[in-house]
Amino acid sequence: MKIIVTGGAGFLGSRLIRALLARGASIPGLPAFDAIVSVDLAPCPVQDARVSSVVGDIADPALLARVVTADTAAIYHLAAVVSGQAEAEFEVGMRVNLDGTRALLDAARATGAAPRFVFASSLAVFGGPMPAVVPEDLALLPQSSYGAQKAIGELLVNDYARKGFVDGRVCRLPTIVVRPGKPNAAASSFASGIIREPLGGQPANCPVPQETRMWLSSPNAVIDNLLHAIAVDGARLEGRRTLNLPGISVTVADMLASLERVGGAAARALVSHEHEERIARIVCSWPGDFDVSRPLALGFTRDGDFDSVVRQYRDEFAG
Amino acid sequence: MKIIVTGGAGFLGSRLIRALLARGASIPGLPAFDAIVSVDLAPCPVQDARVSSVVGDIADPALLARVVTADTAAIYHLAAVVSGQAEAEFEVGMRVNLDGTRALLDAARATGAAPRFVFASSLAVFGGPMPAVVPEDLALLPQSSYGAQKAIGELLVNDYARKGFVDGRVCRLPTIVVRPGKPNAAASSFASGIIREPLGGQPANCPVPQETRMWLSSPNAVIDNLLHAIAVDGARLEGRRTLNLPGISVTVADMLASLERVGGAAARALVSHEHEERIARIVCSWPGDFDVSRPLALGFTRDGDFDSVVRQYRDEFAG
Repeated sequence: MKIIVTGGAGFLGSRLIRALLARGASIPGLPAFDAIVSVDLAPCPVQDARVSSVVGDIADPALLARVVTADTAAIYHLAAVVSGQAEAEFEVGMRVNLDGTRALLDAARATGAAPRFVFASSLAVFGGPMPAVVPEDLALLPQSSYGAQKAIGELLVNDYARKGFVDGRVCRLPTIVVRPGKPNAAASSFASGIIREPLGGQPANCPVPQETRMWLSSPNAVIDNLLHAIAVDGARLEGRRTLNLPGISVTVADMLASLERVGGAAARALVSHEHEERIARIVCSWPGDFDVSRPLALGFTRDGDFDSVVRQYRDEFAG
Repeated sequence: MKIIVTGGAGFLGSRLIRALLARGASIPGLPAFDAIVSVDLAPCPVQDARVSSVVGDIADPALLARVVTADTAAIYHLAAVVSGQAEAEFEVGMRVNLDGTRALLDAARATGAAPRFVFASSLAVFGGPMPAVVPEDLALLPQSSYGAQKAIGELLVNDYARKGFVDGRVCRLPTIVVRPGKPNAAASSFASGIIREPLGGQPANCPVPQETRMWLSSPNAVIDNLLHAIAVDGARLEGRRTLNLPGISVTVADMLASLERVGGAAARALVSHEHEERIARIVCSWPGDFDVSRPLALGFTRDGDFDSVVRQYRDEFAG
């Protein structure tokens, strides 16, 4: 049996594949597998005999029909056009984020094996007037095409699961901080940048007000939760297959205070504060805190505090 | 300028077209028009020089490109595969209800004229645990593919409107009672049947428990609200373009009591009560009452009581 990871060449996808290889056999409920297939526009960087790469377009049904075969135990669907690009290039976002998700669900359905299917969604599905702490039953009001496409994907996964076509689970990921590497086109890219660049001695700009509250998770916490998402018993989800993954709620000012505690005042001084309305409008429409009592009761976890998130990055990438 | 009505051959669509012809010029805010084009699988039955019919598939982009031209002032999108059929024939529902809606939005976008766009949605977008009175910001949890497809259509209309591609409004229609003619494949078809058949001297079955609470509207009230939906100033919607149209909240027992008051005890006695789980499971997942303070403040209206709904049918169709 195999596990398919779309977006397996990306930061999160390749990290998930490494975690599956290292810990998969020990996770209760995770289907037994002897192969992992990455589907992405680039090859997966993980070097392991059990990992193979299919390079191509996630929205291509013919490609998916070749990859998603009856021996598929589980699918992680992480591939997406990020928020900034989906807003700037509407058709590209619709094709990859909507058509791609649907094509993958159809391919999974066609196997007849109802594989487990974990869909990575986003807090960008929320928007408009919101209480300080977002309850699980708040209506979605996306303020970006990315958010709308993710909300549509959630509905598709839930309906395909209700019909028995897949054993679906939707994980709304917090903003993942700190991502290594270069800035990307996500509206949230700055949230990693204002930690990563100063720790590397480089300047970074914070385009949103310092009082902006964000819902964050370290890469390690998200990976732990993605592994758990596939392991949790579907019957315990009681037909509500969309979960707000636990995160920590911090303001940008809190983040910069952590940067200073971990990296020193000189690092903090490298952050400038030029407001960028295009970014702020999107990011400030996202909720900054959630009631996650149900996912916590289901065994999902979160980081202890933001200092530990900064140290996680420093120890792995800036050491 | 023209107005396009998809589903213009149907009961609601043809009734809307007659109302537009009779009252359109007098509705403040409604764009001036000299033609109405019906798009449906059958020709529109309305005989009027201003009405033309395009017979074809709503999900065919080439057909839509011919119909949806730059002189389109407004589009009513009523065409859909109903709930029972969408559940039984998954691919048909996805193609018509999802692909069709998206293709129509894309055709409207391609005109560059941002026409007004009224999308008929449904209370089938709701499901799962619900308060007795559903607030406007309750999360959607559809329990049918029809409901999921309508919820996806709502997200599309809102995003296309946010991007300025259309001037969109989503009307979640109550269950429309009393529909004339024959039963259809909608799970709610019985709600008209238990009034219509007895008033015509025929037996009818009620497949759900009598305490089932339903959210209902007469055809006349829905038509008034669809006309108002296109007339209301978009700025007053404050980015929340999805509206629960006002209805009245009655139990099936209330409906049968109205039938007896209007049609007599003999009519009431024609209704049998054989439970049908397939129907009950869908209908009982729908909410029976809504907080509609915002739509009422925006000028939408509703029936006075269910007796008047029964009399409306009797006077027009059973007289």
